[in-house]
Amino acid sequence: MNPVLSGAERTAALASLSGWTERDGGSSLARDFVFRDFAEAFAFMTRVALAAERLEHHPDWTNRWNRVEITLTTHEAGGLTERDISLAREIDRAAK
Amino acid sequence: MNPVLSGAERTAALASLSGWTERDGGSSLARDFVFRDFAEAFAFMTRVALAAERLEHHPDWTNRWNRVEITLTTHEAGGLTERDISLAREIDRAAK
Repeated sequence: MNPVLSGAERTAALASLSGWTERDGGSSLARDFVFRDFAEAFAFMTRVALAAERLEHHPDWTNRWNRVEITLTTHEAGGLTERDISLAREIDRAAK
Repeated sequence: MNPVLSGAERTAALASLSGWTERDGGSSLARDFVFRDFAEAFAFMTRVALAAERLEHHPDWTNRWNRVEITLTTHEAGGLTERDISLAREIDRAAK
């Protein structure tokens, strides 16, 4: 299992991403996405779902019409790990 | 626009569904679904997404791994309408 990132590792990882913010005292990462309509939002979610299966790591997410709110954490590690950073990168790619 | 259901209409509609509960003083309906894994949960969500597009009415929903929590309301009417009941029926069908 991947270890929880240290504060310095989190800072470095966040600097390599854009639009993500730390939540819960650094134990999760969050980003909200807004699309044109539900179909665009769900198409994005489908791309993320496929990436999540490939990475064997999944988002906690909420969708309402054209909006998708994503939270990433590694539940079994009790905090942020490299797996969350990898998934965040795939999510950003899926949103482009 | 469909009118908000009266208390009696809500009661009758709920009696025709199973597993749904009223929330927010009767202004929304909620149901939680649990699947074997993420792939099963997302397959269900995809069926619901297609039904939602067809009905032009969409759920508010949250997914975490194998769990999908759905809330239905008609935002523009400020409460539950017949559109929510129709979507609930489609969701139940998608979960089978």
